[in-house]
Amino acid sequence: MIHLQVHMHVKPEARQDFAEKAKALITSTQAEAGNISYALYEDVSSPGRFVMIEEWKDEQAIEQHNQTEHLTGFFAYARDVLTEPVNIHRF
Amino acid sequence: MIHLQVHMHVKPEARQDFAEKAKALITSTQAEAGNISYALYEDVSSPGRFVMIEEWKDEQAIEQHNQTEHLTGFFAYARDVLTEPVNIHRF
Repeated sequence: MIHLQVHMHVKPEARQDFAEKAKALITSTQAEAGNISYALYEDVSSPGRFVMIEEWKDEQAIEQHNQTEHLTGFFAYARDVLTEPVNIHRF
Repeated sequence: MIHLQVHMHVKPEARQDFAEKAKALITSTQAEAGNISYALYEDVSSPGRFVMIEEWKDEQAIEQHNQTEHLTGFFAYARDVLTEPVNIHRF
């Protein structure tokens, strides 16, 4: 199993729209064969600081995920509301 | 460095009080010499599902933290509002 923490910091005015749009991404991703878990969390002390906590079966599952329309489409949107580059922790 | 994800599921009616009480725990913990980062996040799709994402210098730092009044006091409170045992992922 591969664990990922994907930290994303979003402009304050965009945080509700971001969380709303992420729900479709989450539903589609949880349906992928190689996904074990995939959930978006927001920092209770710093609204707009999000982390996607992900668990994947293997490397191939992550590579397939990275090619999906639901992920590429989401990041085409997210690019404009992130305040800094995505920070990925991998375990 | 040691990474911890501490997953805590809280009764719906207690989630705001839980997040509020956790802020004092977070401030005191971030002041500990052995702590690198310590933040509480809530699942945007499932309110009441929290995760504390923690980074520690070493094992000794975690052991010292586990003896502190701010942590033991917080868990004396949290025990009554958690819906299931705490689930800790360690990396």
